[in-house]
Parts: sequence; structure tokens; C-alpha cells
Amino acid sequence: MLSCLTWSVCTHRVINAEKSEFNEDQAACCQISIRRREPGLEEDEEWLILCSTQYLTGSYWALFDGHGGPEAAIIASNYLHYCIKQKLEEAVGGITEVHPPMHLSGRCVCDSDPQFVQEKQIHAEDMVVGALENAFQECDEVIGQEMEATNQTGGCTALAALYLQGKLYVANAGDSRAILVLKDNIVPMSCEFTPETERQRIQHLAFLFPKLLDGEFTRFEFPRRLKGDDVGQKVLYRDYFMEGWGYKMVEKADLKYPLIHGHGKQARLLGTLAVSRGLGDHQLKVIDTNIEVKPFLSCIPKVNVFDFALHDIKEDDVLIMATDGLWDVLCNKEVAHTVRSFLAENRTNPHRFSELAKCLVCRARGKKTGHQWMLDDSHEASYDDISVFVIPLHNRDADC
Amino acid sequence: MLSCLTWSVCTHRVINAEKSEFNEDQAACCQISIRRREPGLEEDEEWLILCSTQYLTGSYWALFDGHGGPEAAIIASNYLHYCIKQKLEEAVGGITEVHPPMHLSGRCVCDSDPQFVQEKQIHAEDMVVGALENAFQECDEVIGQEMEATNQTGGCTALAALYLQGKLYVANAGDSRAILVLKDNIVPMSCEFTPETERQRIQHLAFLFPKLLDGEFTRFEFPRRLKGDDVGQKVLYRDYFMEGWGYKMVEKADLKYPLIHGHGKQARLLGTLAVSRGLGDHQLKVIDTNIEVKPFLSCIPKVNVFDFALHDIKEDDVLIMATDGLWDVLCNKEVAHTVRSFLAENRTNPHRFSELAKCLVCRARGKKTGHQWMLDDSHEASYDDISVFVIPLHNRDADC
Repeated sequence: MLSCLTWSVCTHRVINAEKSEFNEDQAACCQISIRRREPGLEEDEEWLILCSTQYLTGSYWALFDGHGGPEAAIIASNYLHYCIKQKLEEAVGGITEVHPPMHLSGRCVCDSDPQFVQEKQIHAEDMVVGALENAFQECDEVIGQEMEATNQTGGCTALAALYLQGKLYVANAGDSRAILVLKDNIVPMSCEFTPETERQRIQHLAFLFPKLLDGEFTRFEFPRRLKGDDVGQKVLYRDYFMEGWGYKMVEKADLKYPLIHGHGKQARLLGTLAVSRGLGDHQLKVIDTNIEVKPFLSCIPKVNVFDFALHDIKEDDVLIMATDGLWDVLCNKEVAHTVRSFLAENRTNPHRFSELAKCLVCRARGKKTGHQWMLDDSHEASYDDISVFVIPLHNRDADC
Repeated sequence: MLSCLTWSVCTHRVINAEKSEFNEDQAACCQISIRRREPGLEEDEEWLILCSTQYLTGSYWALFDGHGGPEAAIIASNYLHYCIKQKLEEAVGGITEVHPPMHLSGRCVCDSDPQFVQEKQIHAEDMVVGALENAFQECDEVIGQEMEATNQTGGCTALAALYLQGKLYVANAGDSRAILVLKDNIVPMSCEFTPETERQRIQHLAFLFPKLLDGEFTRFEFPRRLKGDDVGQKVLYRDYFMEGWGYKMVEKADLKYPLIHGHGKQARLLGTLAVSRGLGDHQLKVIDTNIEVKPFLSCIPKVNVFDFALHDIKEDDVLIMATDGLWDVLCNKEVAHTVRSFLAENRTNPHRFSELAKCLVCRARGKKTGHQWMLDDSHEASYDDISVFVIPLHNRDADC
């Protein structure tokens, strides 16, 4: 269990479901202080910044779900916030202005530069999004170097939330999920990246670089793995450019193992990985082959932004971040229902957000009935690691 | 002007704005009759189908906006419906069933095949979408062969609507647009594919295959084309993986012409093309270079589906399809306002849909004031070709 204070009330719990030997989930949260650059200050005058006390402060929370060992998740939990801080500082001249200047130095090389920036509709928010995208890429490189140097393997998903200047940014690469549970509605703040949701991107890459499959896999999607009896028949299929389906005359080559195989939680990329975005996995090869998985993975997050200035945030409104251990057994509506009823029933409890996180983890973990772990509604409980952040949104600037 | 009848009332107008010498827009509409295949009938028994009189009938409308000459648009207008018919017939065994069979022949190689198909949630609708996607690709190949054989050049956008079995399918590749104007709302049925909307796909391809740019272009996006004075400065930029912006230290290589340049209607791919999807352009090269544009183009449409069973269609509800000549000067709301007020004022006129199409074209063409063509609100009128279909949706099955 971790505990920390980054704004008025910030509580989270990370609990292994205790059904497996190791917990591969990792969590991190901290304040990120970004040195402001004085407008017009040249880079070679950076010592002046050091004399200044101007800082921009953000709050950061992140969850990492490791696979093939916890190492990548551990490095990411220790390093991603540093990468984000670094990338934000590199762009800070653009983050503190409504319209970022064309040149970071503030110099105006061309009179109509401000107009060009305005035409492209570039705002401070876009600079934060760009910083997060670049930070994920940087962190991925560092993990690759670190894992190679220490001869370790594995990877992790990454879900990071950053509160900065009145906006919440949620960057996601993997199958964790963040939602805002507000009084009257639920706002999804991320979408999941799996071999199924990214089928077309992955198939397209295999189409462009067939050598990546080394003759061992077929890039086509069929409803099931084909067998000898299917050869010569026309069966349902999809190629990279198709959202719909067609019929394809089956050839012998189609009997190869599919690039993406299985449905839902069983879906695998190259028979190996259940996610299509994340950090690490630089050394990962398909078992007994020389086929690398990394080219098909992406470390780039999709970033969603929520502007608090456009919403009237109520006392019980929260951000829920959790690894797939929670979402595999509870849908957004079920989580929101638990959140609302728990907070309503525990209004005077000063630890209610922390206890809500525990409540959510325990609900997803279920109860042991004989050899099985079951949910209250007698569905099977989660066998995965479960990590949950509950982050209250009211009075969010009290400590920042 | 073209005119035809494919269901109870189907009207459209194609009018060159008469400001340029040639109209590069083309239109097509027809009924598509698809031979049904008897369930369980083997392919080698196809002669049996010929004896049967069972046909499935769809209605088809399409607009093609040519560039670099009208030839590609002319071939597409003569050929795309044939490709669609062919692809629908190839999949007809799947289109007439709620759950398409795994094997077109209806054979069941594996007992759980129906279950696999159901798990993948494959419906008849997906087969039509797949047929449209394949038809666009087939038509593109035919155009390529035909243009090469006749030593012609050029390409076109393609917007095709198909009404089949109670559903409307709109397939779009390019910058034409289709919207449903219903009594209480507007339903967009397509999105535009331009160098700006497809920036990341195009930049990513240049990242994967830098040779495609032959050292003449930079794949990075900057707010404006850079110049010598920018070298050594950190300026705003985006790479393929970024939705946000960052700052990049400018190198000499960044001074090259940008892969995508200009804003809005002035945006160009490789300084050459204003659209990023469409048919043709197989021979198109960047002027004075050996750089081919085609690898960056996609002929694959995005298909949107509207299920009439889920909506209560009113008498004045219509589908509006038009080339960019209309949408450059009128937004969806303005078009919907014109549609609703025109139809309300002309309720008893039997030619009101046809006259509405003419009214929309004339509104976008504007009036000549001196040397300029102006809209009613004294904005500049469209100088492009303008083609509009107005397709009433009520009583749509009367003739089908």
C-alpha cells in the first residue's frame, strides 16, 4: 500500500489481489515543479532562471501494469515523472502563454509568426500534450537501455494523470483506464490499446514490412484459426484496410498462426502480448523464434484533456484510475455506482477517499468460495493484480 | 445536369459553377441488382443461380470530384457501381443472413463455427461495409490500368451512398461530404480526408520510408515554412506521433519543403494535392522530381452506416451529398436551414427535391458583382465545381 499527499486530499491504494506470488502493478504520485523561464530570456542566460523562484507546479499520478516481470514497471514508476518534468521544462515558454511563441526564445524572426501560430490553433494545452507524448517516448528509450544493461526483460502499460494550470491531462498507453465520476455523469478519460482495438495499425505494419512476420504468422484476421479442411473454401476474413468483412479463398499460407489471435482478454499479439501499447519489451521475441514484438508495439500515449474551468465540480466528484484488474470485472457504471453510494454514506469520514479505493479493490478481488474467488453477484472475480487511485477533484488547488 | 429515378423520388443536380472551362465533377446513380445465392448452393452449381429469379436490389448514388483532368472521375462514375455490385455478389451469402456463415458455401467445417462468427459480432452489415471497401480498391486498380493504357493522368475523390436492406451506407474517400438533414437534427455521414486531417498517417509513412521523400521534403510540421534565420532556434513542430506540439532545434534539413504545407483549403500534400484519399493518381509525380504521390494516398473509404429501422423518418428528411464546391462556402447548419425552409415553402411542388438541389448549387455559386462572385451574405462565393444530390428518405422502399 502507498500513501501520499499531493493536493488537498489525494488518496490511493495499491493492493495486490494476493492470488499470485508477485504484484506486477506499480504506482507513483508526486508533485512536479517546473522551472518557469523568464519571457525573452536567452538559453545561455539560464543561470538567471536558477536565481528566480518562479515555479509552475503540477500534480502527477500514474499506474504501471508490468508483464514478464515487474522491472519495467518499477523503472517507469521511478522515471516517467522525471521525463515529464524535463519535457515540460523544455517547452515551458509555450506552456505559460495562451498562444505559445513560434520561437522558444521569444524572438520574432518573421513579423507574421504570431499569426501563423494562431492559424494553426496552437495553445498552451497542446504543448503539455506534446510534452507528455515525448516523455513517454523518452521513458521507453531509458527503459530499453536500462533493461539491456542489466540483462532484464519485460514491459508495462502506463496510465499517467497530470493536473496543471486548471486542466487534467490523462495519458494512456495500454489497457488501464481512467474515468471521471461526476455527480451527473461519467467522463471516460482514456481508451484501451489492445491487439483487438489496434488491429488495423498492427496488420498494416505487417503489410508494409512482411519480413517482420518471418513467414511464421498470417496478417489476415479470420473468426478462428484455420485448418487443413478450410483450404480451398471461401471463409470470412479482414485485412488491414477493412473495418467490414469479406470472404477469402483459403490458401495454405493462411493456415499460419494469426498475427492477432483470440477474443477479449484472450486476444494476443503474435501469440505473446495482451496489450499493443506500453513501455519496455525491447528484447521480447516470440517464443522459439527470432520474431521481435517491439516493432508492433507503440509507446505513444493518447492524451485526453479535461478543462475544469468548463465544469462545476462537486464535492464528491473524483478521478478513478485503475489497472485492468478492476475493469475486467467491473464496468464504468458499476464503479460509478460504488463511488457515489460509498461517498454518500461516508460523508463525515476524513479517510473516505482512501477507504473507497480499498472498497473498489476488495469488490473486484471478490471473496474466496472453496477454490474460487467470486464477486457479490456470483460472477468470477479478478485474478489479476488490482490497483486503484481515487483522486478527489474538489478544492484541487488548495495545496497547489 | 443529370436526372434519374431510382426510388420513389430521387433527384439530383450537377451544375458546373460555370466559372471555369471544364467541370471535373462527375455523378452517377443507378439501381444495383445483386444475384442471391441459394443457401448451401455450391459454387460449381452456379448455373442454378442463373435459373433463379431472386435478386437483392440496392440504390446507389455517387459523386466524383476530379483533379488533373476529368478522366479518372469519368472512369469511376462508369465503373465503381459495377465493382460494388461484383463485391456484393461475392459476399451475398453473408449479406442475406443475420450472422454470415463462416464458409461462403454454407458448409460447417467446425461445429463451433457459428459461435466464432457470433463472438466476433459479424453481421450482414459488416459484409456490405467490407464489399464497399474492396470495391473502392478494385476500382482504383482499374483506373490505374486504364489511365496507363491510354496514357492519361489525374485522379478523383469518391463519395458513394448505397441503400440496401433498410440501411444507408455512405463510403467516402476525399473531401466531398454527405449529411442527413432530419426534422430535428443533422447526422454527418462522412468525414473529409485531406493532408491536414490525415497528417499523422502521412508523416508516419514518411518516417517508415524516408526514401519516398527523396531528400526533397521534411516530414516535420512547422507553423510556417522555415528559413535560414530559423536555423539554430527552437521552433514549434509536430512529428507523426504527436497530437500536441513541442519545440525543435532547427537544423538545415528542416528548411526543406514540408511534406504537408498550408492551412485549410490551401493545404497540400507534397505541394501537389489537396486531398489524401481518392481514386487514380497512379502516375502523379511532384513537379520536376521523381517523387511519387500515390504511396501517400489511400483509396480506402471510411464507411458510415445509418439504420432506418432505428429512426422515424419524416416526409422532408433528406440525404444531401455534395462535392467540396458546396461545403467550402456553406456549413452543415446553413445547408440544413436552406433544406428545411425550402421544403416547407414548397410542400405541394412535385419537383421540390430537384429544385432544392438547384437552389443549393445556386446559393453556393453566388451572384456576379463586378468581377467577383459573391454569396448573399457578401462573403466570396465558391469558385470550384459544385455538385449536389438531394435524396428524399421517406417512402424509400416504394420502388425498391
